[in-house]
Amino acid sequence: MYNIVLANSALELIPNEIKNKIRRAKIYKYDILDSNYHYKAMKNLKDREMRGRPDIVHISLLNILDSPINHEKKLNIYVHTYDDKVLTIDPNTRLPRNYFRFLGVIEKVLKGERNPLIKMEEKTLEDLLNDINAKNIALMSKTGQLVKPSHLKNFDTFLIGGFPYGSLVVNEDKITGELKDISIYDKGLMAWTVCGIVCYALSF
Amino acid sequence: MYNIVLANSALELIPNEIKNKIRRAKIYKYDILDSNYHYKAMKNLKDREMRGRPDIVHISLLNILDSPINHEKKLNIYVHTYDDKVLTIDPNTRLPRNYFRFLGVIEKVLKGERNPLIKMEEKTLEDLLNDINAKNIALMSKTGQLVKPSHLKNFDTFLIGGFPYGSLVVNEDKITGELKDISIYDKGLMAWTVCGIVCYALSF
Repeated sequence: MYNIVLANSALELIPNEIKNKIRRAKIYKYDILDSNYHYKAMKNLKDREMRGRPDIVHISLLNILDSPINHEKKLNIYVHTYDDKVLTIDPNTRLPRNYFRFLGVIEKVLKGERNPLIKMEEKTLEDLLNDINAKNIALMSKTGQLVKPSHLKNFDTFLIGGFPYGSLVVNEDKITGELKDISIYDKGLMAWTVCGIVCYALSF
Repeated sequence: MYNIVLANSALELIPNEIKNKIRRAKIYKYDILDSNYHYKAMKNLKDREMRGRPDIVHISLLNILDSPINHEKKLNIYVHTYDDKVLTIDPNTRLPRNYFRFLGVIEKVLKGERNPLIKMEEKTLEDLLNDINAKNIALMSKTGQLVKPSHLKNFDTFLIGGFPYGSLVVNEDKITGELKDISIYDKGLMAWTVCGIVCYALSF
Protein backbone atom coordinates (compact mmCIF):
# COMPACT_ATOMS: atom_id res chain seq x y z
CA MET A 1 0.00 0.00 0.00
CA TYR A 2 1.07 3.54 -0.75
CA ASN A 3 -0.19 6.82 0.71
CA ILE A 4 -0.70 9.79 -1.56
CA VAL A 5 -1.33 13.13 0.12
CA LEU A 6 -2.32 16.36 -1.61
CA ALA A 7 -0.93 18.78 0.98
CA ASN A 8 -1.88 22.37 1.89
CA SER A 9 -4.42 22.12 -0.90
CA ALA A 10 -6.04 25.31 -2.16
CA LEU A 11 -9.48 24.05 -1.15
CA GLU A 12 -11.50 25.72 1.62
CA LEU A 13 -14.81 27.33 2.44
CA ILE A 14 -14.88 31.08 1.86
CA PRO A 15 -13.00 32.47 4.86
CA ASN A 16 -14.95 34.71 7.25
CA GLU A 17 -12.69 37.72 6.79
CA ILE A 18 -13.69 38.17 3.14
CA LYS A 19 -17.28 36.93 3.25
CA ASN A 20 -18.68 40.45 3.17
CA LYS A 21 -16.63 41.28 0.07
CA ILE A 22 -18.10 38.53 -2.05
CA ARG A 23 -21.00 39.17 -4.35
CA ARG A 24 -22.43 35.85 -5.35
CA ALA A 25 -22.06 35.33 -9.08
CA LYS A 26 -25.06 33.97 -10.93
CA ILE A 27 -23.17 31.00 -12.24
CA TYR A 28 -21.16 30.32 -9.06
CA LYS A 29 -23.34 29.45 -6.11
CA TYR A 30 -20.86 27.59 -3.91
CA ASP A 31 -19.36 28.57 -0.57
CA ILE A 32 -15.96 27.31 -1.70
CA LEU A 33 -13.19 29.81 -2.35
CA ASP A 34 -12.27 29.97 -6.06
CA SER A 35 -9.87 32.66 -7.26
CA ASN A 36 -11.46 32.53 -10.70
CA TYR A 37 -14.68 33.92 -9.21
CA HIS A 38 -13.39 35.66 -6.05
CA TYR A 39 -10.31 37.32 -7.44
CA LYS A 40 -11.11 40.83 -6.26
CA ALA A 41 -12.30 39.78 -2.81
CA MET A 42 -9.06 37.82 -2.30
CA LYS A 43 -6.86 40.83 -3.01
CA ASN A 44 -5.67 41.33 0.57
CA LEU A 45 -6.14 37.76 1.77
CA LYS A 46 -3.13 36.19 3.50
CA ASP A 47 -1.25 33.71 1.25
CA ARG A 48 -3.72 34.45 -1.51
CA GLU A 49 -1.47 32.97 -4.20
CA MET A 50 -1.69 29.56 -2.57
CA ARG A 51 -5.45 29.58 -2.03
CA GLY A 52 -8.71 29.28 -3.92
CA ARG A 53 -7.84 26.68 -6.55
CA PRO A 54 -10.26 23.77 -5.99
CA ASP A 55 -9.80 22.87 -9.66
CA ILE A 56 -6.31 21.64 -8.77
CA VAL A 57 -7.78 19.19 -6.27
CA HIS A 58 -10.47 18.14 -8.75
CA ILE A 59 -8.12 17.31 -11.62
CA SER A 60 -5.51 15.75 -9.33
CA LEU A 61 -8.13 13.43 -7.82
CA LEU A 62 -9.47 12.50 -11.27
CA ASN A 63 -5.93 11.43 -12.22
CA ILE A 64 -5.30 9.57 -8.97
CA LEU A 65 -8.64 7.75 -8.84
CA ASP A 66 -8.43 6.42 -12.41
CA SER A 67 -4.79 5.31 -12.15
CA PRO A 68 -4.10 1.57 -12.45
CA ILE A 69 -2.49 1.50 -8.99
CA ASN A 70 -5.76 2.79 -7.53
CA HIS A 71 -7.82 0.31 -9.54
CA GLU A 72 -5.61 -2.36 -7.93
CA LYS A 73 -6.68 -0.96 -4.51
CA LYS A 74 -3.13 -0.19 -3.43
CA LEU A 75 -3.56 3.52 -2.65
CA ASN A 76 -4.69 5.46 0.38
CA ILE A 77 -5.75 8.90 -0.81
CA TYR A 78 -5.78 12.03 1.35
CA VAL A 79 -6.44 15.69 0.69
CA HIS A 80 -5.02 17.99 3.38
CA THR A 81 -6.20 21.59 3.01
CA TYR A 82 -4.77 25.04 3.68
CA ASP A 83 -6.96 25.34 6.78
CA ASP A 84 -5.97 21.95 8.19
CA LYS A 85 -8.82 19.72 7.22
CA VAL A 86 -8.13 16.23 5.94
CA LEU A 87 -10.37 14.46 3.47
CA THR A 88 -9.91 10.70 3.25
CA ILE A 89 -11.06 9.63 -0.21
CA ASP A 90 -12.34 6.10 -0.67
CA PRO A 91 -10.55 4.50 -3.67
CA ASN A 92 -13.96 3.54 -5.08
CA THR A 93 -15.17 7.12 -5.20
CA ARG A 94 -16.64 8.06 -8.58
CA LEU A 95 -15.86 11.74 -8.49
CA PRO A 96 -18.12 14.02 -10.56
CA ARG A 97 -16.33 14.89 -13.80
CA ASN A 98 -18.18 18.18 -13.93
CA TYR A 99 -16.37 20.83 -11.89
CA PHE A 100 -19.50 22.39 -10.39
CA ARG A 101 -20.91 19.04 -9.37
CA PHE A 102 -17.57 18.31 -7.73
CA LEU A 103 -17.85 21.58 -5.79
CA GLY A 104 -21.37 20.64 -4.73
CA VAL A 105 -20.17 17.37 -3.24
CA ILE A 106 -17.08 18.84 -1.58
CA GLU A 107 -18.94 21.82 -0.13
CA LYS A 108 -21.20 19.49 1.81
CA VAL A 109 -18.23 17.50 3.10
CA LEU A 110 -16.36 20.64 4.19
CA LYS A 111 -19.49 21.80 6.03
CA GLY A 112 -19.53 18.57 7.99
CA GLU A 113 -22.27 16.68 6.19
CA ARG A 114 -21.67 12.95 6.20
CA ASN A 115 -20.54 11.34 2.92
CA PRO A 116 -20.09 7.56 2.70
CA LEU A 117 -16.96 7.84 0.53
CA ILE A 118 -15.27 11.05 1.67
CA LYS A 119 -14.52 11.44 5.38
CA MET A 120 -13.53 14.82 6.81
CA GLU A 121 -11.49 15.52 9.95
CA GLU A 122 -9.72 18.57 11.37
CA LYS A 123 -6.05 17.64 11.37
CA THR A 124 -2.61 19.07 10.62
CA LEU A 125 -0.44 17.60 7.89
CA GLU A 126 2.08 16.37 10.48
CA ASP A 127 -0.61 14.63 12.55
CA LEU A 128 -1.94 12.99 9.39
CA LEU A 129 1.51 11.65 8.49
CA ASN A 130 1.91 10.17 11.97
CA ASP A 131 -1.62 8.76 12.05
CA ILE A 132 -1.13 6.90 8.77
CA ASN A 133 2.27 5.70 9.96
CA ALA A 134 4.17 7.26 7.06
CA LYS A 135 7.76 5.96 7.21
CA ASN A 136 9.57 6.87 4.00
CA ILE A 137 8.07 10.09 2.80
CA ALA A 138 8.81 11.68 -0.58
CA LEU A 139 8.08 15.39 -0.56
CA MET A 140 7.70 16.11 -4.26
CA SER A 141 9.33 19.41 -5.16
CA LYS A 142 11.00 21.04 -8.12
CA THR A 143 14.24 21.54 -6.18
CA GLY A 144 14.56 18.13 -4.50
CA GLN A 145 16.93 15.31 -5.42
CA LEU A 146 16.26 14.39 -9.05
CA VAL A 147 15.28 10.71 -9.40
CA LYS A 148 13.82 8.54 -12.11
CA PRO A 149 10.14 7.74 -11.63
CA SER A 150 10.99 4.05 -11.13
CA HIS A 151 12.83 5.09 -7.95
CA LEU A 152 9.58 6.26 -6.38
CA LYS A 153 8.64 2.72 -5.36
CA ASN A 154 11.18 3.04 -2.55
CA PHE A 155 8.83 5.35 -0.68
CA ASP A 156 5.55 4.56 1.05
CA THR A 157 4.13 8.06 1.17
CA PHE A 158 4.02 10.90 -1.36
CA LEU A 159 3.40 14.53 -0.46
CA ILE A 160 2.31 16.72 -3.35
CA GLY A 161 1.46 20.38 -2.86
CA GLY A 162 -2.16 20.92 -3.90
CA PHE A 163 -1.66 24.60 -4.70
CA PRO A 164 -0.42 26.65 -7.67
CA TYR A 165 2.63 28.53 -6.36
CA GLY A 166 5.00 28.38 -3.40
CA SER A 167 6.73 25.64 -1.46
CA LEU A 168 5.38 22.93 0.74
CA VAL A 169 6.83 23.12 4.25
CA VAL A 170 6.62 20.25 6.72
CA ASN A 171 7.65 20.55 10.36
CA GLU A 172 10.02 17.59 10.50
CA ASP A 173 10.33 17.78 14.31
CA LYS A 174 6.69 16.78 14.55
CA ILE A 175 6.77 13.69 12.35
CA THR A 176 8.11 10.24 13.12
CA GLY A 177 8.83 9.19 9.53
CA GLU A 178 11.82 10.10 7.40
CA LEU A 179 11.22 12.81 4.83
CA LYS A 180 13.19 13.43 1.63
CA ASP A 181 12.83 16.20 -0.95
CA ILE A 182 12.41 14.46 -4.28
CA SER A 183 12.11 15.83 -7.79
CA ILE A 184 11.16 14.03 -10.99
CA TYR A 185 11.68 16.97 -13.31
CA ASP A 186 13.77 20.10 -13.06
CA LYS A 187 10.95 22.45 -14.09
CA GLY A 188 7.78 23.19 -12.19
CA LEU A 189 4.85 20.89 -12.89
CA MET A 190 1.22 21.21 -11.93
CA ALA A 191 0.02 19.15 -8.98
CA TRP A 192 -2.14 16.98 -11.23
CA THR A 193 0.87 16.14 -13.40
CA VAL A 194 2.94 15.12 -10.39
CA CYS A 195 0.02 13.02 -9.12
CA GLY A 196 -0.17 11.34 -12.51
CA ILE A 197 3.54 10.63 -12.75
CA VAL A 198 3.67 9.25 -9.17
CA CYS A 199 0.62 7.03 -9.66
CA TYR A 200 1.75 5.69 -13.03
CA ALA A 201 5.27 5.05 -11.71
CA LEU A 202 3.73 2.96 -8.92
CA SER A 203 1.40 1.21 -11.40
CA PHE A 204 3.92 -0.39 -13.73
CA MET B 1 8.80 14.28 -32.31
CA TYR B 2 5.67 12.34 -31.40
CA ASN B 3 2.08 12.90 -32.49
CA ILE B 4 -0.70 12.54 -29.94
CA VAL B 5 -4.24 12.50 -31.30
CA LEU B 6 -7.44 12.58 -29.27
CA ALA B 7 -9.70 10.87 -31.78
CA ASN B 8 -13.48 11.01 -32.33
CA SER B 9 -13.56 13.34 -29.34
CA ALA B 10 -16.90 14.08 -27.71
CA LEU B 11 -16.56 17.78 -28.49
CA GLU B 12 -18.87 19.55 -30.92
CA LEU B 13 -21.24 22.45 -31.32
CA ILE B 14 -24.85 21.60 -30.45
CA PRO B 15 -26.07 19.69 -33.52
CA ASN B 16 -28.89 21.26 -35.53
CA GLU B 17 -31.27 18.32 -35.06
CA ILE B 18 -31.58 18.93 -31.31
CA LYS B 19 -31.18 22.70 -31.17
CA ASN B 20 -34.91 23.22 -30.72
CA LYS B 21 -34.98 20.82 -27.76
CA ILE B 22 -32.42 22.71 -25.72
CA ARG B 23 -33.47 25.23 -23.14
CA ARG B 24 -30.50 27.34 -22.28
CA ALA B 25 -29.57 26.84 -18.63
CA LYS B 26 -28.74 29.93 -16.61
CA ILE B 27 -25.31 28.64 -15.70
CA TYR B 28 -24.50 27.08 -19.08
CA LYS B 29 -24.42 29.62 -21.88
CA TYR B 30 -22.26 27.79 -24.42
CA ASP B 31 -23.20 26.36 -27.81
CA ILE B 32 -21.10 23.27 -27.10
CA LEU B 33 -22.85 19.96 -26.53
CA ASP B 34 -22.45 18.75 -22.92
CA SER B 35 -24.41 15.72 -21.76
CA ASN B 36 -24.34 17.03 -18.20
CA TYR B 37 -26.56 19.95 -19.28
CA HIS B 38 -28.23 18.52 -22.41
CA TYR B 39 -29.02 15.05 -21.19
CA LYS B 40 -32.73 15.12 -22.04
CA ALA B 41 -32.28 16.77 -25.43
CA MET B 42 -29.70 14.11 -26.35
CA LYS B 43 -32.07 11.23 -25.64
CA ASN B 44 -32.62 10.23 -29.28
CA LEU B 45 -29.38 11.59 -30.67
CA LYS B 46 -27.33 9.14 -32.76
CA ASP B 47 -24.28 7.74 -30.91
CA ARG B 48 -25.27 9.78 -27.88
CA GLU B 49 -23.11 7.73 -25.53
CA MET B 50 -19.99 8.84 -27.39
CA ARG B 51 -20.92 12.51 -27.58
CA GLY B 52 -21.18 15.61 -25.42
CA ARG B 53 -18.22 15.18 -23.08
CA PRO B 54 -15.98 18.23 -23.63
CA ASP B 55 -14.67 17.73 -20.08
CA ILE B 56 -12.78 14.69 -21.39
CA VAL B 57 -10.96 16.87 -23.91
CA HIS B 58 -10.32 19.53 -21.28
CA ILE B 59 -8.71 17.24 -18.71
CA SER B 60 -6.83 15.24 -21.35
CA LEU B 61 -5.31 18.43 -22.77
CA LEU B 62 -4.38 19.70 -19.29
CA ASN B 63 -2.47 16.44 -18.75
CA ILE B 64 -0.82 16.50 -22.18
CA LEU B 65 0.18 20.17 -22.13
CA ASP B 66 1.84 20.02 -18.71
CA SER B 67 3.72 16.76 -19.39
CA PRO B 68 7.54 16.94 -19.43
CA ILE B 69 7.64 15.65 -23.04
CA ASN B 70 5.52 18.63 -24.07
CA HIS B 71 7.65 21.06 -22.07
CA GLU B 72 10.58 19.66 -24.08
CA LYS B 73 8.64 20.62 -27.26
CA LYS B 74 8.59 17.08 -28.61
CA LEU B 75 4.84 16.69 -29.07
CA ASN B 76 2.41 17.56 -31.84
CA ILE B 77 -1.04 17.70 -30.30
CA TYR B 78 -4.29 17.17 -32.20
CA VAL B 79 -7.93 16.90 -31.21
CA HIS B 80 -10.08 15.20 -33.85
CA THR B 81 -13.80 15.47 -33.11
CA TYR B 82 -16.89 13.33 -33.64
CA ASP B 83 -17.97 15.61 -36.51
CA ASP B 84 -14.57 15.54 -38.25
CA LYS B 85 -12.98 18.73 -37.17
CA VAL B 86 -9.32 18.79 -36.23
CA LEU B 87 -7.88 21.19 -33.69
CA THR B 88 -4.11 21.61 -33.79
CA ILE B 89 -3.01 22.72 -30.35
CA ASP B 90 0.18 24.75 -30.03
CA PRO B 91 2.42 23.16 -27.35
CA ASN B 92 2.72 26.59 -25.68
CA THR B 93 -1.03 26.92 -25.17
CA ARG B 94 -1.96 27.88 -21.63
CA LEU B 95 -5.35 26.26 -21.50
CA PRO B 96 -7.88 27.78 -19.08
CA ARG B 97 -8.03 25.62 -15.96
CA ASN B 98 -11.62 26.64 -15.43
CA TYR B 99 -13.98 24.42 -17.41
CA PHE B 100 -16.33 27.19 -18.50
CA ARG B 101 -13.49 29.41 -19.62
CA PHE B 102 -12.17 26.47 -21.63
CA LEU B 103 -15.58 26.12 -23.28
CA GLY B 104 -15.58 29.84 -24.07
CA VAL B 105 -12.27 29.53 -25.90
CA ILE B 106 -13.15 26.33 -27.74
CA GLU B 107 -16.59 27.53 -28.79
CA LYS B 108 -15.04 30.42 -30.68
CA VAL B 109 -12.55 28.09 -32.37
CA LEU B 110 -15.28 25.62 -33.41
CA LYS B 111 -17.27 28.51 -34.85
CA GLY B 112 -14.33 29.44 -37.04
CA GLU B 113 -12.96 32.40 -35.13
CA ARG B 114 -9.20 32.71 -35.46
CA ASN B 115 -7.09 31.75 -32.44
CA PRO B 116 -3.29 32.18 -32.57
CA LEU B 117 -2.67 28.92 -30.66
CA ILE B 118 -5.51 26.62 -31.71
CA LYS B 119 -6.05 26.06 -35.43
CA MET B 120 -9.23 24.42 -36.69
CA GLU B 121 -9.78 22.51 -39.95
CA GLU B 122 -12.46 20.20 -41.30
CA LYS B 123 -10.72 16.85 -41.71
CA THR B 124 -11.27 13.13 -41.20
CA LEU B 125 -9.09 11.16 -38.79
CA GLU B 126 -7.58 9.21 -41.69
CA ASP B 127 -6.68 12.35 -43.60
CA LEU B 128 -5.10 13.80 -40.49
CA LEU B 129 -2.94 10.70 -40.02
CA ASN B 130 -1.74 10.91 -43.61
CA ASP B 131 -1.18 14.66 -43.48
CA ILE B 132 1.05 14.38 -40.40
CA ASN B 133 2.87 11.46 -41.99
CA ALA B 134 2.05 9.03 -39.16
CA LYS B 135 4.10 5.88 -39.76
CA ASN B 136 3.91 3.67 -36.67
CA ILE B 137 0.57 4.30 -35.08
CA ALA B 138 -0.49 2.95 -31.68
CA LEU B 139 -4.25 2.80 -31.36
CA MET B 140 -4.68 2.73 -27.59
CA SER B 141 -7.44 0.31 -26.60
CA LYS B 142 -8.38 -1.93 -23.70
CA THR B 143 -8.30 -5.02 -25.90
CA GLY B 144 -5.07 -4.43 -27.84
CA GLN B 145 -1.74 -6.12 -27.38
CA LEU B 146 -0.65 -5.53 -23.78
CA VAL B 147 2.72 -3.76 -23.62
CA LYS B 148 4.77 -2.04 -20.95
CA PRO B 149 4.66 1.76 -21.14
CA SER B 150 8.39 1.80 -21.98
CA HIS B 151 7.50 0.02 -25.23
CA LEU B 152 5.49 3.03 -26.40
CA LYS B 153 8.62 4.83 -27.59
CA ASN B 154 8.61 2.49 -30.61
CA PHE B 155 5.67 4.38 -32.07
CA ASP B 156 5.54 7.87 -33.53
CA THR B 157 1.81 8.46 -33.25
CA PHE B 158 -0.74 7.72 -30.51
CA LEU B 159 -4.47 7.56 -31.07
CA ILE B 160 -6.57 7.89 -27.94
CA GLY B 161 -10.36 7.89 -28.07
CA GLY B 162 -11.60 11.19 -26.67
CA PHE B 163 -15.00 9.81 -25.65
CA PRO B 164 -16.42 7.91 -22.66
CA TYR B 165 -17.70 4.62 -24.13
CA GLY B 166 -17.29 2.58 -27.30
CA SER B 167 -14.43 1.67 -29.57
CA LEU B 168 -12.28 3.77 -31.84
CA VAL B 169 -12.49 2.58 -35.44
CA VAL B 170 -9.98 3.62 -38.08
CA ASN B 171 -10.38 2.82 -41.78
CA GLU B 172 -6.99 1.21 -42.37
CA ASP B 173 -7.45 1.16 -46.14
CA LYS B 174 -7.32 4.92 -46.13
CA ILE B 175 -4.09 5.41 -44.19
CA THR B 176 -0.52 4.96 -45.34
CA GLY B 177 0.99 4.27 -41.92
CA GLU B 178 0.98 1.00 -40.01
CA LEU B 179 -1.54 0.76 -37.20
CA LYS B 180 -1.40 -1.54 -34.16
CA ASP B 181 -3.93 -2.02 -31.37
CA ILE B 182 -2.03 -1.45 -28.15
CA SER B 183 -3.09 -1.74 -24.53
CA ILE B 184 -1.26 -0.64 -21.40
CA TYR B 185 -3.78 -2.02 -18.92
CA ASP B 186 -6.38 -4.74 -19.14
CA LYS B 187 -9.18 -2.63 -17.67
CA GLY B 188 -10.78 0.42 -19.20
CA LEU B 189 -9.15 3.73 -18.40
CA MET B 190 -10.38 7.25 -18.98
CA ALA B 191 -8.91 9.11 -21.97
CA TRP B 192 -7.07 11.55 -19.69
CA THR B 193 -5.39 8.67 -17.88
CA VAL B 194 -4.20 7.12 -21.15
CA CYS B 195 -2.95 10.54 -22.28
CA GLY B 196 -1.05 10.86 -19.02
CA ILE B 197 0.50 7.40 -19.19
CA VAL B 198 1.52 7.85 -22.84
CA CYS B 199 3.04 11.30 -22.24
CA TYR B 200 4.91 10.25 -19.10
CA ALA B 201 6.19 7.08 -20.80
CA LEU B 202 7.60 9.27 -23.56
CA SER B 203 9.00 11.76 -21.03
CA PHE B 204 11.35 9.52 -19.09
